Amino acid sequence: MNRLPLSDLENLVVVLVRPRNPQNIGAAARAMTNFGAPHLRLVNPYKLAFHDATSAVGASAVLKAAKEFESVADAVSDCMHVIGTTAVRDRALNQPVHTLDKDSGTAIRTHLADGRVALLFGSEKTGLSNDDFSHCHTLLTISTRQEQISMNLGQAVAVCLYELARSSSAPRSEEVIDLPTAAETEQITELLLDSLRISGYIKPGTSKMFEKKTRQLILRLNLKAYDAKLLLGMVRQISWKLRQPPKS
Amino acid sequence: MNRLPLSDLENLVVVLVRPRNPQNIGAAARAMTNFGAPHLRLVNPYKLAFHDATSAVGASAVLKAAKEFESVADAVSDCMHVIGTTAVRDRALNQPVHTLDKDSGTAIRTHLADGRVALLFGSEKTGLSNDDFSHCHTLLTISTRQEQISMNLGQAVAVCLYELARSSSAPRSEEVIDLPTAAETEQITELLLDSLRISGYIKPGTSKMFEKKTRQLILRLNLKAYDAKLLLGMVRQISWKLRQPPKS
Repeated sequence: MNRLPLSDLENLVVVLVRPRNPQNIGAAARAMTNFGAPHLRLVNPYKLAFHDATSAVGASAVLKAAKEFESVADAVSDCMHVIGTTAVRDRALNQPVHTLDKDSGTAIRTHLADGRVALLFGSEKTGLSNDDFSHCHTLLTISTRQEQISMNLGQAVAVCLYELARSSSAPRSEEVIDLPTAAETEQITELLLDSLRISGYIKPGTSKMFEKKTRQLILRLNLKAYDAKLLLGMVRQISWKLRQPPKS
Repeated sequence: MNRLPLSDLENLVVVLVRPRNPQNIGAAARAMTNFGAPHLRLVNPYKLAFHDATSAVGASAVLKAAKEFESVADAVSDCMHVIGTTAVRDRALNQPVHTLDKDSGTAIRTHLADGRVALLFGSEKTGLSNDDFSHCHTLLTISTRQEQISMNLGQAVAVCLYELARSSSAPRSEEVIDLPTAAETEQITELLLDSLRISGYIKPGTSKMFEKKTRQLILRLNLKAYDAKLLLGMVRQISWKLRQPPKS
């Protein structure tokens, strides 16, 4: 029997956001080893869970190399494309939601050919929050029966990687497009929010909502690296100017 | 977002052979609920594991309805087609091994349209034994990296069901072919073995090996229900005759 060649997942970063169960962290890492995705990051894991998982006898190379972060923004800062997974309960989602299949797998592989792609999985109980979603370019869901749409964390990771490992990227033109990292677009968002706050556009108490709205707006622009740099320079200057004391 | 319609898995029987870990049994049942496969059977589960899994708070309907069996033969007796999953270590396998993908998914769905299909998963540590394999018409493997071919039990179940739930059966002719159950073919095997033992074809001490060989031979015949009945009548008669005391 010939083993099928699997596609390269070196550019994929699996991000577990607030995982609570060491066994789920271990299971995610095991599936990553099975399908050849080496980069695991954890955002605010339940402390004991992370410790138990990484210090377990026979912890895999993936687990041992796992990195811990304080926020989703930090965890995805070097990624060009950020995808959030969701069971799509009844929350109203603003981003496009793709169903995991051959087509969405191909689309993700095409992003992987461009640079790092983060695939976010939420905590066992609550999934990803709206705040987490605001960092995502697109969302991804696994088709399940309506009666039970929430999947076990380790199983969701395994199913996603199974699909991605055998997808191939779409044939593409020769043109190479440089994309900004998530850290660069987040910097634009932060400086813009800063400016909006100082200028009184954002009313006190609505800051949290505007933060997400603004982050999503910037992501929707699909900025090229060059335009991102340009825009960053602009908002940096505006924000600086707004912070100057009024001339007397 | 439209949720994709999932294919019916009512005819699929998931069989866990000698599972040891209640969390894996629970995870398998959860994936079955996610993808709509209601029938779980366990062969000689580690007693505490089965008890812990089924009595857990919030145990699903799938878990509560799970049935326990003493042998693989009993667990698959009402099935028309039996598939064993394997990571294909270095053992020499006699059956055809298919890789899980759209094509093998379609083939399995075509069997599901005919009647019950058993999908066997081995224990966490050792997988299915050669003895278990001898009950299988075909084997199925999930493509993984060579470095780590063994998947977590719950994750392997989830990945298989994900693929099967979205495959559709092959377009088929109108002809309806009646197939024998695994119990009927096993009866032929048993009576044939009985005859071979009495007739001295099977030498003492080689019985175990011949049992598997003979079972596989009968499965390879791909008997229709009518021919299975015919053959069963023949070997029953032969075996009866062989047991008669010699005429003096």
